[in-house]
Amino acid sequence: MQRQRKLGRGVAVVGAGMSKFGVYADKDSRDLLVEAYTEMLTSVDKGIDPEDIDAMWFGNFSNDFWVRQAHWGPIVADILGHAPRPVTRNEGACASSTLAFRDGVFAIASGFYDVVMVGGFEDMSKVSTESATEGLALALDLPYEGCVGFTFPGVFAATAVAYFAKYGANPDHLKNVTIKSHNNAPLNPKAQFPQTILDVMNSRIKRAKERGQPVPTWKNEWDYLHDTKANPMIAWPLQMFDCCPISDGASCILLCAEEIARNFTDNPLHVVGIGQGSGRPLHTKEDLTYFEANRQAAKEAYGMSGLTPKDIQFAEVHDCFSIAELIHTEDLGFFKPGEAYKAVAEGLTRRDGPMPINSSGGLKCKGHPVGATGTAQMYEIWKQLRGEAGPRQIPNKNLRIGATQNLGGTGGTCTFCIFERR
Amino acid sequence: MQRQRKLGRGVAVVGAGMSKFGVYADKDSRDLLVEAYTEMLTSVDKGIDPEDIDAMWFGNFSNDFWVRQAHWGPIVADILGHAPRPVTRNEGACASSTLAFRDGVFAIASGFYDVVMVGGFEDMSKVSTESATEGLALALDLPYEGCVGFTFPGVFAATAVAYFAKYGANPDHLKNVTIKSHNNAPLNPKAQFPQTILDVMNSRIKRAKERGQPVPTWKNEWDYLHDTKANPMIAWPLQMFDCCPISDGASCILLCAEEIARNFTDNPLHVVGIGQGSGRPLHTKEDLTYFEANRQAAKEAYGMSGLTPKDIQFAEVHDCFSIAELIHTEDLGFFKPGEAYKAVAEGLTRRDGPMPINSSGGLKCKGHPVGATGTAQMYEIWKQLRGEAGPRQIPNKNLRIGATQNLGGTGGTCTFCIFERR
Repeated sequence: MQRQRKLGRGVAVVGAGMSKFGVYADKDSRDLLVEAYTEMLTSVDKGIDPEDIDAMWFGNFSNDFWVRQAHWGPIVADILGHAPRPVTRNEGACASSTLAFRDGVFAIASGFYDVVMVGGFEDMSKVSTESATEGLALALDLPYEGCVGFTFPGVFAATAVAYFAKYGANPDHLKNVTIKSHNNAPLNPKAQFPQTILDVMNSRIKRAKERGQPVPTWKNEWDYLHDTKANPMIAWPLQMFDCCPISDGASCILLCAEEIARNFTDNPLHVVGIGQGSGRPLHTKEDLTYFEANRQAAKEAYGMSGLTPKDIQFAEVHDCFSIAELIHTEDLGFFKPGEAYKAVAEGLTRRDGPMPINSSGGLKCKGHPVGATGTAQMYEIWKQLRGEAGPRQIPNKNLRIGATQNLGGTGGTCTFCIFERR
Repeated sequence: MQRQRKLGRGVAVVGAGMSKFGVYADKDSRDLLVEAYTEMLTSVDKGIDPEDIDAMWFGNFSNDFWVRQAHWGPIVADILGHAPRPVTRNEGACASSTLAFRDGVFAIASGFYDVVMVGGFEDMSKVSTESATEGLALALDLPYEGCVGFTFPGVFAATAVAYFAKYGANPDHLKNVTIKSHNNAPLNPKAQFPQTILDVMNSRIKRAKERGQPVPTWKNEWDYLHDTKANPMIAWPLQMFDCCPISDGASCILLCAEEIARNFTDNPLHVVGIGQGSGRPLHTKEDLTYFEANRQAAKEAYGMSGLTPKDIQFAEVHDCFSIAELIHTEDLGFFKPGEAYKAVAEGLTRRDGPMPINSSGGLKCKGHPVGATGTAQMYEIWKQLRGEAGPRQIPNKNLRIGATQNLGGTGGTCTFCIFERR
């Protein structure tokens, strides 16, 4: 019988920053981190002296093998002027920066530190697509999951097939997720793809006309998404617009002990729930339609917070593929198993719906520089709960509790974090 | 003005295990971790149900690029039967597992978890020596430290030259370190090289005789170490016997909240000091003869413990190269700057001296599977403080306080941890 998990000392979020996500030939991890860090410093309402940051944790997945540079702790310390104070790296594939966040929370809650920066970064675009796919596949349990030739689109395609078979969904239900995320993206100035599907479609029609090419006959976004020339099949049923992109980016979050939060802002967020779980490899699973690691993460985070799924008003979840968004929102209890695809079809997860999911545009549109994603999700929560999300502000006037869910591998690592504005 | 750092809840060590270190064609990270984990479980005096382990943290440096497998969290969870509970990876080059230890300590001290396993592993011997050297060099800050062709033997050779110039030491003073470590190693059943220098010398003489080859004329260990055929020059003044080997291995440590330690053993160790620091790249340093990161780590750990260098009765320090051992023992205040080489020459750091250093044989003789080293150093502290070190037991009958110092890169990450038996 597991006791209820609590922190002995409360932790607050008092600042957040992120780089614009995208594909940059002229910016590397160092540049992008400085961009995020600079915004984070300026986001602190009452200001912060960087000397007051006791320690840092950050997530990065791939720099060892793509950029051929490991041991980023002291590099981060050097470029941010933080040396000789400590910096620690966490790696948990696409969940890396939430692991960093969690360790930073523990460090403050332990009483050892008062002010901690957590974040993450990834520089993914400098390698070929083949290298990128092969590198990402290192997040599989290779002797089991990789030996049959699986890479991630294949894994999530199999997940989608299992979900369809069990619950009666079909590929159009996945497209609802994509359309919804693309409707949010133009409102996010940091997004890699700030276009709706209609924007993309119309720009292609316009371009064809300008070039005197045959003009496509798409009438609406469904025509466009159903056209496998415009939206190629990657691994059935996942088409290109079901898959998040390769991205470069960085994000960071400033944490402090609750009792000193008001030194930095009158409008902090409180870390009310943290959870993490591990999933076993695919061959051990009898059912691909949920992630055991999500359930463990939810148990820890709900247990700590005393909250239930009904209390969560909006969330950023890890939509590396459209199917993943559906499953996460079921695993976390926002919708019953097999019901998420109906909820999306009914518009419930739209920005103006009762349960907005990925108001940022999600990984699909905002981009997915993997090590940066976890704390970038928190950046969105920070913006929304403080009413600073601008044109993409969720219209709910009583927004008080938001959550982030971050996944690594085939669900090998899942995290769930809950934030509250009081 | 930094406040004194304290943990809100005490943390104890109640178990420890490590694989035999060595070069294994037939064992990988999974095998070695299971070996260490199994010993750790059996080391718990009153037993432990593995289900009681709430979470795990482990360090690994190289598996991404040498073994081509990242995201080891869920793999560890799977092979140790720990899923769906969380597992987090830390990477800080050769200091990786001490970072894992520190995060595990914070997690317990935060109140969130009660029982945590921390550890590390590395599988280094499956690649060529060239690949190994190139891979290890990823722990440098490559645009600055690597661009001039530096790899680690060169870095520490430069360090030694600076130390010689400033303090008047010479290569024989480094050999004193090596001879001392090799005198300890035969007493450690887990050591990769369990031979004294005389053992090595005599076995080579014996082999020459058996093969009818010219018999070397070495009379003692000094003859042997001075012979650059027996002890080749790697990077002046470092010869082969000044350098730790390439190794495979794993280690782990079981931590729990102090208030429940007696459920597991009547003889726990208490974590009384933890410290970590970051060092800037070499080109920024005006003086190569100390590590700024060590000084930061020492400040944190001594500050937390209320102890001074005089209180530390023995230590395991990161002797990746013989010169490093000298510098660490000065940075941590065991000896004054420029005095460590004299202390070693006088025998003060011998196992039966007043300040035993690396009673395990150190990285030089025990081996240095980099991700495993930090928690393997703690394994030695565990054995010594509990009086279970067998023939290598430090003869001091009042052994009560021991420490570990772990370094990553060119001193980019340094840690210092202090343990007490009460």
